[in-house]
Amino acid sequence: MNLDTPRGTRDLLPNETYVRNEVYRKIREVFESYGYGEVETPAFENFELLAAKSGPEIEEEIYAFEDKGGRKLGLRFDPTVPIARIVASDPSKPKPMKYYYITRMWRYEKPQQGRWREFWQAGCELIGPSSVEADAEMLKLTQECLKRVTNTEFVIKINSREVMDELAAEAGVKEEDKDEVFRALDKLDKKTQKEVEDELIEKNVDLNGFRTMLMKIEKGEVNCESEERLMKIKRKAEEMGVKNLEVDYSIMRGLDYYTGFIFETLVKGSEQIGSVCSGGRYDSLIGIYGKEDVPATGFGLGVDRLLEVAGITETSSSNPSQADFYIVPVNDSSRNEALRLTQELREKGFRADTDLMERGLSKQMNYINSLKIPYALIMGPKEIKNSEVTLKNMETGEQIKVKRSSLTEKLRDLKN
Amino acid sequence: MNLDTPRGTRDLLPNETYVRNEVYRKIREVFESYGYGEVETPAFENFELLAAKSGPEIEEEIYAFEDKGGRKLGLRFDPTVPIARIVASDPSKPKPMKYYYITRMWRYEKPQQGRWREFWQAGCELIGPSSVEADAEMLKLTQECLKRVTNTEFVIKINSREVMDELAAEAGVKEEDKDEVFRALDKLDKKTQKEVEDELIEKNVDLNGFRTMLMKIEKGEVNCESEERLMKIKRKAEEMGVKNLEVDYSIMRGLDYYTGFIFETLVKGSEQIGSVCSGGRYDSLIGIYGKEDVPATGFGLGVDRLLEVAGITETSSSNPSQADFYIVPVNDSSRNEALRLTQELREKGFRADTDLMERGLSKQMNYINSLKIPYALIMGPKEIKNSEVTLKNMETGEQIKVKRSSLTEKLRDLKN
Repeated sequence: MNLDTPRGTRDLLPNETYVRNEVYRKIREVFESYGYGEVETPAFENFELLAAKSGPEIEEEIYAFEDKGGRKLGLRFDPTVPIARIVASDPSKPKPMKYYYITRMWRYEKPQQGRWREFWQAGCELIGPSSVEADAEMLKLTQECLKRVTNTEFVIKINSREVMDELAAEAGVKEEDKDEVFRALDKLDKKTQKEVEDELIEKNVDLNGFRTMLMKIEKGEVNCESEERLMKIKRKAEEMGVKNLEVDYSIMRGLDYYTGFIFETLVKGSEQIGSVCSGGRYDSLIGIYGKEDVPATGFGLGVDRLLEVAGITETSSSNPSQADFYIVPVNDSSRNEALRLTQELREKGFRADTDLMERGLSKQMNYINSLKIPYALIMGPKEIKNSEVTLKNMETGEQIKVKRSSLTEKLRDLKN
Repeated sequence: MNLDTPRGTRDLLPNETYVRNEVYRKIREVFESYGYGEVETPAFENFELLAAKSGPEIEEEIYAFEDKGGRKLGLRFDPTVPIARIVASDPSKPKPMKYYYITRMWRYEKPQQGRWREFWQAGCELIGPSSVEADAEMLKLTQECLKRVTNTEFVIKINSREVMDELAAEAGVKEEDKDEVFRALDKLDKKTQKEVEDELIEKNVDLNGFRTMLMKIEKGEVNCESEERLMKIKRKAEEMGVKNLEVDYSIMRGLDYYTGFIFETLVKGSEQIGSVCSGGRYDSLIGIYGKEDVPATGFGLGVDRLLEVAGITETSSSNPSQADFYIVPVNDSSRNEALRLTQELREKGFRADTDLMERGLSKQMNYINSLKIPYALIMGPKEIKNSEVTLKNMETGEQIKVKRSSLTEKLRDLKN
């Protein structure tokens, strides 16, 4: 039988979940300190809902299927659509709504380094406010989340759909060519101008508009009305303590999605890895599902990529939540007392374990070594008689006798 | 557009996730104190793997679908099969393996009260030991998890497949009738003996064996070899402090699955609700996937049902992670200073929030009330000039002035 996980998915074992749980705890703390509450939505949604935003061609990129009642469903590939559904389905809820999520999603794409078909994302949505402060809060939260998880330095690049629209209009880019021109600008960090222009020609897009826009951007001659709002967001975020903010008119994300401010977050010096965290303002999304538009801003953070960038995908221990102390009965007559001590230590809050396989001393010691448990508490008839244990430091091999009466104190010291 | 979640699924909003996160934290602590490490497996598995345990007819009860590469997949409906896959795929891993999970699963069944198509389960698997102590640890962990989460009193009913097999053989139940007879015994808490026997007759099962078994069970005349092991498990668990253990020869769970010790956990006085937590020994499951059998024992706890039984499905606050303190700028000129104070409080670890919607005083106060935020810190030009805030207790309406210099201390007092 094929025992592999389905293509593009993988198991997370304790050495990975342990690191992730720590990261999730930190991210939770950040979001909750800003008044965000966690939401969890179903793994699958009605396909119609998923397609409303991205069009029916999204089916090619996701896991879509029919249930036994003939209802077409799809595994969610994006956290914002379900949250927009929640907002649209109850317009009376007080605004702002501050929602965060830490959850997994699925995309049917070619698996490659750091790209999984099942992947984890954390992020938040701030629904209601259209203010500069709301967008600045996204930048602040991004920085706080990243700072709590890693020492890696990031650059946050910001732009605005409104600025780009204005610029495109000024440069004479035709409305129907706009998205292609924006995509071309976005590609310039990976491709040459020649390559990008060849692609535009192939798509029958007039090059003049593109070149005018590019020139203005390169010369820093972007003086349009919407620029002021972008600068206000930047200043407000900087006042809130956000560092390494850069306006970059070549970044263009989610053309079918964002309506104003957009941003992405790159590793300083390793920008080619791509964005770890990105987001922006999407004032027209909720209106697709409900009676009216609701201003909204948010961002998402790729957990898998963040862990890679931070170099903390796993711990060296195969089971880091395995016991700190392993109680070793040296023979069968010591088993009961070993289990009793184990229970006693667990009740005192220690992570303690003992042999459940009726193994001899040396096999137990091998197991302790293979799991990298730091201390063994060896108990034989002599130790039991003397109300003591033999405490062995598994790294140094050092052994000392410790009286049961002072054991708790001794183990507390070792843990600190 | 239909804005409902797919049938049998639902959104978890902050008032629910908040409670769940607390419960998960407690369950995590219990499992980790016993040396279990968390595992997370893909939402879907190769269908072949899922069907290997339960037969291809399982397709009727789960979400099964083909991916775009024509591979048949199914959403996992059980946590043990993926973990058995992990064990079977790397037989060299040191035993015991102690794995726990807190995750969701999917079953395509008729949705009803407390039965969801998407549901959460927590539990653990202890792989390697065949000892009595290992089974007793499951009972101890069950009790610890439940005790940490709720004051509700539970009865843990235990039985053993081996005892039942022996009893069936003695009573002359034919091998091919055994499962039906066991199911009939299991149904006796919900149906009369007449109803159960009519069903057996319909299935051409001889009633003599069934009646003999039932008589022996009712008279307490179960004296077979395997009973000794069951009693040892009971005694060991009781030594470890497990209360309310009852041997009950009428409980029969997972006939295609368990090989020895089995148990279920009922609410004392409300047994009709059904089992909140159940498990047992499954020494033949891993062998289905790998080269050889590996002894294993484990249990699963239905999170949704547990929360219902404990009466803690949600908090009264619509967003319990919303701020404890809301900083209210009374006019536009106070906004900057309000945001600054909010940031200052967040950095000190308070959950603080402020207006991001450029609202006036009364609308802000309405919002604070609707979210049940306990304290407002009102800031106008006068307060800013005097380096103070007006602290309002939203429940009592009481207002006092607090100097900025003593604000942190004051808010700490309020939080404690």
